[in-house]
Amino acid sequence: MIPMEPVKGEEVAGVNGKVNFAAPRSFAVAFKSDMKETLFPDDPFHDFKGKTLAEKAKKSIQYFVPVFQWLPNYTGKLFMYDLLAGVTIASLAIPQGISYAKLANIPPVIGLYSSFVPPLIYAIFGNSKHLAVGTVASSSLIIAGAIEKKVHEADNPQLYLNLIFTATLISGVIQLVLGVFRLGILVDFLSHSTITGFMGGTATIISLQQLKGIFGLRHFTTQTDVVSVTKAIFQFKHEIRWECTLVGVFFLIFLHTAKMVKQKRPKLFWVQAIAPMLVVAIGCIFAFALDAKKYGIAIVGPLKKGINPPSLKNLDFDPKYISAPIEAGVITALVALAEGIAIGRSFALMVNQQIDGNKEMIAFGLMNIVGSLTSCYLTTGPFSKTAVNYNAGCKSQMSNVVMAACMMLTLFFLAPLFSYTPLVALSAIIMSAMLGLIEYDKAYHLFKTDKFDFLICMAAFLGVAFISMDVGLMLSVGLALVRALLYVARPASSKLGNIPDTSLYRDVEQYPGAINIPKTLVLQLGSPIYFANSGYIRERILRWVRDEKANKETDGDDVEYVLLDLGGVTSIDITGVETLIEIRRSLEAQEVKVVIVNPRLEVMEKLIVTNFVDKIGKDRIFLSIKDAIEGCKFSLSQ
Amino acid sequence: MIPMEPVKGEEVAGVNGKVNFAAPRSFAVAFKSDMKETLFPDDPFHDFKGKTLAEKAKKSIQYFVPVFQWLPNYTGKLFMYDLLAGVTIASLAIPQGISYAKLANIPPVIGLYSSFVPPLIYAIFGNSKHLAVGTVASSSLIIAGAIEKKVHEADNPQLYLNLIFTATLISGVIQLVLGVFRLGILVDFLSHSTITGFMGGTATIISLQQLKGIFGLRHFTTQTDVVSVTKAIFQFKHEIRWECTLVGVFFLIFLHTAKMVKQKRPKLFWVQAIAPMLVVAIGCIFAFALDAKKYGIAIVGPLKKGINPPSLKNLDFDPKYISAPIEAGVITALVALAEGIAIGRSFALMVNQQIDGNKEMIAFGLMNIVGSLTSCYLTTGPFSKTAVNYNAGCKSQMSNVVMAACMMLTLFFLAPLFSYTPLVALSAIIMSAMLGLIEYDKAYHLFKTDKFDFLICMAAFLGVAFISMDVGLMLSVGLALVRALLYVARPASSKLGNIPDTSLYRDVEQYPGAINIPKTLVLQLGSPIYFANSGYIRERILRWVRDEKANKETDGDDVEYVLLDLGGVTSIDITGVETLIEIRRSLEAQEVKVVIVNPRLEVMEKLIVTNFVDKIGKDRIFLSIKDAIEGCKFSLSQ
Repeated sequence: MIPMEPVKGEEVAGVNGKVNFAAPRSFAVAFKSDMKETLFPDDPFHDFKGKTLAEKAKKSIQYFVPVFQWLPNYTGKLFMYDLLAGVTIASLAIPQGISYAKLANIPPVIGLYSSFVPPLIYAIFGNSKHLAVGTVASSSLIIAGAIEKKVHEADNPQLYLNLIFTATLISGVIQLVLGVFRLGILVDFLSHSTITGFMGGTATIISLQQLKGIFGLRHFTTQTDVVSVTKAIFQFKHEIRWECTLVGVFFLIFLHTAKMVKQKRPKLFWVQAIAPMLVVAIGCIFAFALDAKKYGIAIVGPLKKGINPPSLKNLDFDPKYISAPIEAGVITALVALAEGIAIGRSFALMVNQQIDGNKEMIAFGLMNIVGSLTSCYLTTGPFSKTAVNYNAGCKSQMSNVVMAACMMLTLFFLAPLFSYTPLVALSAIIMSAMLGLIEYDKAYHLFKTDKFDFLICMAAFLGVAFISMDVGLMLSVGLALVRALLYVARPASSKLGNIPDTSLYRDVEQYPGAINIPKTLVLQLGSPIYFANSGYIRERILRWVRDEKANKETDGDDVEYVLLDLGGVTSIDITGVETLIEIRRSLEAQEVKVVIVNPRLEVMEKLIVTNFVDKIGKDRIFLSIKDAIEGCKFSLSQ
Repeated sequence: MIPMEPVKGEEVAGVNGKVNFAAPRSFAVAFKSDMKETLFPDDPFHDFKGKTLAEKAKKSIQYFVPVFQWLPNYTGKLFMYDLLAGVTIASLAIPQGISYAKLANIPPVIGLYSSFVPPLIYAIFGNSKHLAVGTVASSSLIIAGAIEKKVHEADNPQLYLNLIFTATLISGVIQLVLGVFRLGILVDFLSHSTITGFMGGTATIISLQQLKGIFGLRHFTTQTDVVSVTKAIFQFKHEIRWECTLVGVFFLIFLHTAKMVKQKRPKLFWVQAIAPMLVVAIGCIFAFALDAKKYGIAIVGPLKKGINPPSLKNLDFDPKYISAPIEAGVITALVALAEGIAIGRSFALMVNQQIDGNKEMIAFGLMNIVGSLTSCYLTTGPFSKTAVNYNAGCKSQMSNVVMAACMMLTLFFLAPLFSYTPLVALSAIIMSAMLGLIEYDKAYHLFKTDKFDFLICMAAFLGVAFISMDVGLMLSVGLALVRALLYVARPASSKLGNIPDTSLYRDVEQYPGAINIPKTLVLQLGSPIYFANSGYIRERILRWVRDEKANKETDGDDVEYVLLDLGGVTSIDITGVETLIEIRRSLEAQEVKVVIVNPRLEVMEKLIVTNFVDKIGKDRIFLSIKDAIEGCKFSLSQ
């Protein structure tokens, strides 16, 4: 079926079974193509081809401001779905808002503000139909931890709050810039394993922190690591109030039961969704009716009526403190993006929608910039709220608008009622949410399937739990980068043999039945060849040849040709080409000839431009292993 | 020629043309293999198989102490060659030793000491037959720059010198440790482009520094960057002594002529080799006879007779200063290794000898540790000396022993003579050597062949020339790492078509004659699939499918199958497998079926262990594109 002789006289490369030695693309063309793959991998403007200017302008606006895309087609029927979903997530937003604000040591009302303005901004600029905007526990804790390094909340609550707003602004600006410059690539370096470990570690330390609320302690440590928290509990154990603990355990069991109900009957998802609101309501009534303070059960305290006041004047760029909000801003920007984008993507996938990570970054950035000016702190797309939104049947970003409307009503009329919320109820809500984020199964799955991924995950988990959140994150990302560089520095290569009765050549380790070719060693290289691995590749190839020679000697055979199958080599740099030249020189000195098989486009361009092709000779480069072996046989028989 | 139906009933994978679904290797086996590839890529103990214990012990000793390998076979005839080479490099070692010691602001005699003890150590432990041990300009400048940050030579010369010895010890220990733990991989990250730029930048600033000597200035800047040096020359231009400048220019022309002679007639290499010694000799006679000081020509000054005094007591680990020698030690350890190993390797290549980078590190480490205890500072294998050694016909490490013997004689008897060496002669020698290290051609070659490599090179060059040596080095290595990570994050993928009348499938961009397959899109992926690129790969594949659908629509065709050729994918992690699952889910939602072709050993193991194979079905995985297309056709016709 394969012609032994290529058809002659053809001009178009590829129809004559010959290698394409056409002149390389110009630098400009190659560079444009590289930049596109790096920054615009999803080809966002693919719809624009062949459109008029007016259509293009319309498309551009729709592209950057998605509300113009979905709102014109929005119907009353869709709104009914979004109304239900919006009210449901609002009932979750109130207790979560108050709880996480407490976690960040800021006034609870800030948490409520944060579920009013940011969702409206997201509804305009956001891509995901399911993402519900809100504050998250991990970022609340990171932001508090970073600011606490400079200013203690207890010493100067106003300055502390101002720095939180500043950190939010910085975070928003970073997210916006990353989005505008299409640097979504940075988020790619937070792997699933890192996120799993990080979430698990964060959930663990946040849960432990809640023991303060559950036990009703008045004193506690400001440290977050497991050891300090455990010590603190033993230190202050005389303060434990059994009434408070009892209430806390009751709430925890209640929330856990609601979770069980949803797991058993997914249709009853709303039971879990409104459970936190119920806990708050029951807590408030109980605290108001029984004068909870008598039993050592602390309450949230005064909550001011009215919507978000402006906070432009609160932003504080005093060089004395600025390092803290910068640190908080950078870390939370990335963590919040990673969480928000991953979650938006997961849900979009279920309905086969595409999410553009870079556009999401812009939406998140704008949402946090506007938020920082309207007394909100860092928001993103939290998993719990988004899942509830999805389950409640939301159809568009309108559910965020509904939630914002509910929050507005709450802020205008109901805020004072929530001042009776017992802290123990908030602790139970946070703890219950956190325990669901520790994914034992996933960690075990990692352990079973990929030990290095498990190591990356555990580095994040243990680092966060026993040292601090930033150290944990950096350890894990560092390990992941080492792995990425090791992949690069130690690329796999394998010896190929002929699968009997076919023209296929496959790894002899994987296919032990593959047959060796007389006088010839066929090697398959993978991944790019360049400075970081060229030394290794040289050593490895020379070792393959040495081993093969030792093997063949016993068979009375000798290695005369080494075929390098470059089909898996995606690119090569100058050091790589020089290495190929070195390898060739070393092998020729041993009277072994080097033959190149199937270099890909980019590699071939580099081989031509560096004169490698001329040096080795065009007759030493073949399109397939089969052709190459026949070419070698031909020379051998001469 | 290719059987349509695989032969049935065979057990060994690979003989029946079927995919190998055998159970994965155990973790221990895979881990051992990975560790071997990472740390022992050259399989250093390959000779040991099937030897008795005594033979193994002997081989081990020979392996770690190469002198036992070459000395027993050493003959008188070989010695004649090494004697000539040794004397020649000694004549270069004297002026270079004094010059580079001046560059490091330490007593010139230290430079002579450094060519006595370290070459002896290298002769015992070193691998390379051609490497000539000595001090180098770049490391001399780096070490001085780092120590100057803490202690100025003028303020406390003894402390300054002690810290230089300490830095040498630290450098040696780092090199030894890197060698013992076989971390030669670190040196791999200094690419040829980085080294070219770094050398060029260093040579530029060192040359500029020599203008002080050439012009006979008494005052000068301690800064090394181009701007400061140029300013200093203008600032002190009233100090310029024309007599001194005249002598300097004369020496420069003399040295340049010697270089020309060698280039025109390679056989006359010794003219260039002894030229520096001649310059020193002429300079000394001239300075002694004419009382050079009268003309503003400064001389080296008193040189003590006698060989290296011990310097154990000079080592200074005072925490107040230790950061400086640590910085100097770390940077010079790596730079010296990169230079020494690269040079050793280049010359070894010419006679088809293999150099084990890790063993070289051990030799360099021991040489510097012993050096730091015997009043030597950092040594490595300088290019100029090694080239002269090679050209002079050296046959073994014995030439280093001869050089050491010459140095010993010089130190015992001739040292005082060299005290008359005019500084201007040294400046001319350094400047002449440095100008040869600026490789314009290579930079132009980089510019023409690889713009990114050129950028990496220029980052090192401009960084070193205009900021500082460490900043330049870090900038360049940083850029190279970004590139390495980009390779990883944005792997190439291409659409394949069938080369007419063959069973070959190749990139349609590269081979425009390749034919599309009806209802099918064949994609070739390259490089590993894992967290850092899985997001990109998902976007890219979905884009390929979208574009292909748009293309085929116009032909009245539709995409029903996507074939993913994983032959170029060397490994995959959990995030990568999850991405494949996501891609499959997205495409199945569009009624496009995913088929996997030719996964390699490591990838197949991961796909089996994560149950991906069970999810997609074994009938969706094929050994070759041809099989896969036939499999798809079969389903289509049903």
